[in-house]
Amino acid sequence: MHGLIGKMTAVPGRRDDLIEAILQGVDDMPGCVSYVVASDASEPDVIWITEVWDDEASHKASLSLPAVRAAIARARPLIASFGPGITTVPVAGHGLGRSAAR
Amino acid sequence: MHGLIGKMTAVPGRRDDLIEAILQGVDDMPGCVSYVVASDASEPDVIWITEVWDDEASHKASLSLPAVRAAIARARPLIASFGPGITTVPVAGHGLGRSAAR
Repeated sequence: MHGLIGKMTAVPGRRDDLIEAILQGVDDMPGCVSYVVASDASEPDVIWITEVWDDEASHKASLSLPAVRAAIARARPLIASFGPGITTVPVAGHGLGRSAAR
Repeated sequence: MHGLIGKMTAVPGRRDDLIEAILQGVDDMPGCVSYVVASDASEPDVIWITEVWDDEASHKASLSLPAVRAAIARARPLIASFGPGITTVPVAGHGLGRSAAR
Protein backbone atom coordinates (compact mmCIF):
# COMPACT_ATOMS: atom_id res chain seq x y z
CA MET A 1 0.00 0.00 0.00
CA HIS A 2 0.97 3.61 -0.46
CA GLY A 3 0.11 6.33 2.07
CA LEU A 4 0.26 10.10 2.27
CA ILE A 5 -0.12 12.48 5.19
CA GLY A 6 -0.41 16.06 4.00
CA LYS A 7 -0.84 19.41 5.71
CA MET A 8 -2.31 22.46 4.00
CA THR A 9 -2.94 25.93 5.33
CA ALA A 10 -5.97 27.68 3.87
CA VAL A 11 -6.18 31.33 3.01
CA PRO A 12 -7.30 32.94 6.33
CA GLY A 13 -10.94 32.20 7.02
CA ARG A 14 -11.42 29.93 4.02
CA ARG A 15 -10.74 26.53 5.59
CA ASP A 16 -14.30 25.27 5.30
CA ASP A 17 -14.40 26.32 1.65
CA LEU A 18 -11.12 24.53 1.00
CA ILE A 19 -12.39 21.34 2.62
CA GLU A 20 -15.58 21.50 0.59
CA ALA A 21 -13.66 22.03 -2.64
CA ILE A 22 -11.47 19.01 -1.96
CA LEU A 23 -14.30 16.71 -0.91
CA GLN A 24 -16.17 17.36 -4.13
CA GLY A 25 -13.36 15.71 -6.07
CA VAL A 26 -12.63 12.56 -4.12
CA ASP A 27 -15.50 10.26 -4.95
CA ASP A 28 -14.79 7.36 -7.24
CA MET A 29 -11.02 7.30 -7.16
CA PRO A 30 -9.98 3.77 -8.21
CA GLY A 31 -7.47 2.22 -5.84
CA CYS A 32 -8.21 4.67 -3.01
CA VAL A 33 -8.54 2.68 0.19
CA SER A 34 -8.94 5.54 2.65
CA TYR A 35 -9.12 9.31 2.23
CA VAL A 36 -9.84 11.48 5.26
CA VAL A 37 -10.03 15.27 5.29
CA ALA A 38 -9.73 16.80 8.76
CA SER A 39 -9.42 20.20 10.37
CA ASP A 40 -6.53 20.76 12.75
CA ALA A 41 -8.04 20.99 16.25
CA SER A 42 -5.81 23.87 17.33
CA GLU A 43 -4.58 25.71 14.21
CA PRO A 44 -7.53 27.61 12.73
CA ASP A 45 -6.65 27.53 9.02
CA VAL A 46 -4.92 24.15 8.85
CA ILE A 47 -6.25 20.93 7.35
CA TRP A 48 -4.78 17.44 7.21
CA ILE A 49 -5.42 14.92 4.47
CA THR A 50 -4.53 11.29 5.17
CA GLU A 51 -4.67 8.90 2.26
CA VAL A 52 -4.17 5.18 1.70
CA TRP A 53 -3.91 3.79 -1.82
CA ASP A 54 -3.50 0.31 -3.23
CA ASP A 55 -0.23 1.45 -4.71
CA GLU A 56 1.58 4.56 -5.86
CA ALA A 57 0.37 4.13 -9.44
CA SER A 58 -3.28 4.41 -8.35
CA HIS A 59 -2.51 7.68 -6.58
CA LYS A 60 -0.67 9.09 -9.60
CA ALA A 61 -3.48 8.04 -11.92
CA SER A 62 -6.05 9.78 -9.71
CA LEU A 63 -4.41 13.12 -10.42
CA SER A 64 -5.52 12.83 -14.04
CA LEU A 65 -9.17 12.10 -13.26
CA PRO A 66 -11.43 14.95 -14.47
CA ALA A 67 -13.15 15.28 -11.06
CA VAL A 68 -9.81 15.46 -9.27
CA ARG A 69 -8.39 17.99 -11.73
CA ALA A 70 -11.48 20.13 -11.25
CA ALA A 71 -11.15 19.87 -7.46
CA ILE A 72 -7.50 20.90 -7.60
CA ALA A 73 -8.44 23.91 -9.72
CA ARG A 74 -11.13 24.95 -7.21
CA ALA A 75 -8.90 24.35 -4.20
CA ARG A 76 -5.72 26.00 -5.38
CA PRO A 77 -6.76 29.65 -4.82
CA LEU A 78 -7.91 28.71 -1.30
CA ILE A 79 -4.50 27.30 -0.28
CA ALA A 80 -1.99 29.63 1.38
CA SER A 81 0.74 27.01 1.83
CA PHE A 82 1.58 23.32 1.96
CA GLY A 83 3.30 21.61 4.85
CA PRO A 84 5.96 18.97 4.29
CA GLY A 85 4.22 15.91 2.90
CA ILE A 86 4.89 12.54 4.47
CA THR A 87 4.90 9.35 2.41
CA THR A 88 4.16 6.12 4.23
CA VAL A 89 3.77 2.41 3.67
CA PRO A 90 0.54 1.49 5.46
CA VAL A 91 0.79 -1.93 7.04
CA ALA A 92 -2.65 -2.70 8.42
CA GLY A 93 -5.51 -1.32 10.39
CA HIS A 94 -9.20 -0.63 10.45
CA GLY A 95 -11.04 1.44 7.90
CA LEU A 96 -9.14 0.05 4.93
CA GLY A 97 -12.30 -1.33 3.42
CA ARG A 98 -11.63 -0.10 -0.10
CA SER A 99 -14.94 1.68 0.05
CA ALA A 100 -13.74 4.27 -2.43
CA ALA A 101 -13.08 1.70 -5.11
CA ARG A 102 -16.60 0.35 -5.00
CA MET B 1 -15.40 12.99 15.05
CA HIS B 2 -12.05 13.04 16.76
CA GLY B 3 -8.78 12.35 14.96
CA LEU B 4 -5.16 11.76 15.86
CA ILE B 5 -2.00 11.71 13.76
CA GLY B 6 0.93 10.36 15.72
CA LYS B 7 4.59 9.72 14.97
CA MET B 8 6.72 7.23 16.87
CA THR B 9 10.35 6.29 16.43
CA ALA B 10 11.16 2.68 17.23
CA VAL B 11 14.27 1.48 18.95
CA PRO B 12 16.73 0.99 16.04
CA GLY B 13 15.88 -2.07 14.01
CA ARG B 14 12.69 -2.86 15.93
CA ARG B 15 10.10 -1.07 13.79
CA ASP B 16 8.43 -4.25 12.54
CA ASP B 17 8.19 -5.57 16.09
CA LEU B 18 6.67 -2.29 17.26
CA ILE B 19 4.07 -2.35 14.49
CA GLU B 20 3.19 -5.95 15.30
CA ALA B 21 2.84 -5.16 19.01
CA ILE B 22 0.49 -2.27 18.28
CA LEU B 23 -1.65 -4.17 15.76
CA GLN B 24 -2.31 -6.95 18.23
CA GLY B 25 -4.17 -4.51 20.44
CA VAL B 26 -6.40 -2.61 18.07
CA ASP B 27 -9.15 -5.06 17.22
CA ASP B 28 -12.56 -4.44 18.73
CA MET B 29 -12.16 -0.86 19.88
CA PRO B 30 -15.68 0.57 20.18
CA GLY B 31 -16.07 3.91 18.46
CA CYS B 32 -12.94 3.47 16.34
CA VAL B 33 -13.79 4.49 12.80
CA SER B 34 -10.34 4.19 11.22
CA TYR B 35 -6.96 3.12 12.59
CA VAL B 36 -4.01 2.82 10.22
CA VAL B 37 -0.47 1.86 11.19
CA ALA B 38 2.13 2.79 8.58
CA SER B 39 5.89 2.81 8.16
CA ASP B 40 7.52 6.06 7.10
CA ALA B 41 8.71 5.56 3.54
CA SER B 42 12.03 7.35 4.08
CA GLU B 43 12.88 7.26 7.80
CA PRO B 44 13.84 3.68 8.71
CA ASP B 45 12.63 3.50 12.33
CA VAL B 46 9.60 5.78 12.10
CA ILE B 47 5.94 4.80 12.13
CA TRP B 48 2.78 6.87 11.76
CA ILE B 49 -0.55 6.04 13.34
CA THR B 50 -3.62 7.81 11.99
CA GLU B 51 -6.83 7.38 13.92
CA VAL B 52 -10.45 8.47 13.55
CA TRP B 53 -12.87 8.03 16.43
CA ASP B 54 -16.56 8.73 16.87
CA ASP B 55 -15.62 11.17 19.61
CA GLU B 56 -12.88 11.90 22.11
CA ALA B 57 -14.60 9.86 24.83
CA SER B 58 -14.37 6.69 22.71
CA HIS B 59 -10.65 7.21 22.27
CA LYS B 60 -10.10 7.80 25.99
CA ALA B 61 -12.17 4.74 26.87
CA SER B 62 -10.10 2.58 24.51
CA LEU B 63 -7.02 3.22 26.62
CA SER B 64 -8.61 1.24 29.44
CA LEU B 65 -9.43 -1.83 27.33
CA PRO B 66 -7.41 -4.87 28.46
CA ALA B 67 -6.19 -5.60 24.92
CA VAL B 68 -5.06 -2.01 24.45
CA ARG B 69 -3.33 -1.88 27.82
CA ALA B 70 -1.49 -5.10 26.97
CA ALA B 71 -0.47 -3.69 23.58
CA ILE B 72 0.86 -0.52 25.20
CA ALA B 73 2.87 -2.62 27.65
CA ARG B 74 4.37 -4.66 24.78
CA ALA B 75 5.04 -1.62 22.62
CA ARG B 76 6.56 0.69 25.20
CA PRO B 77 10.06 -0.89 25.36
CA LEU B 78 10.21 -0.80 21.55
CA ILE B 79 9.60 2.97 21.35
CA ALA B 80 12.61 5.31 21.34
CA SER B 81 10.60 8.54 21.10
CA PHE B 82 7.28 10.13 20.24
CA GLY B 83 6.83 12.91 17.72
CA PRO B 84 4.46 15.79 18.37
CA GLY B 85 0.94 14.42 18.19
CA ILE B 86 -1.63 16.19 16.07
CA THR B 87 -5.29 16.30 17.04
CA THR B 88 -7.81 16.78 14.26
CA VAL B 89 -11.51 17.05 13.62
CA PRO B 90 -12.14 14.71 10.67
CA VAL B 91 -14.81 16.10 8.39
CA ALA B 92 -15.47 13.43 5.79
CA GLY B 93 -13.85 11.00 3.45
CA HIS B 94 -13.60 7.40 2.39
CA GLY B 95 -12.69 4.52 4.66
CA LEU B 96 -14.75 5.76 7.58
CA GLY B 97 -16.88 2.67 7.53
CA ARG B 98 -16.82 2.05 11.27
CA SER B 99 -15.44 -1.38 10.56
CA ALA B 100 -13.70 -1.47 13.93
CA ALA B 101 -16.95 -1.11 15.80
CA ARG B 102 -18.46 -4.16 14.17
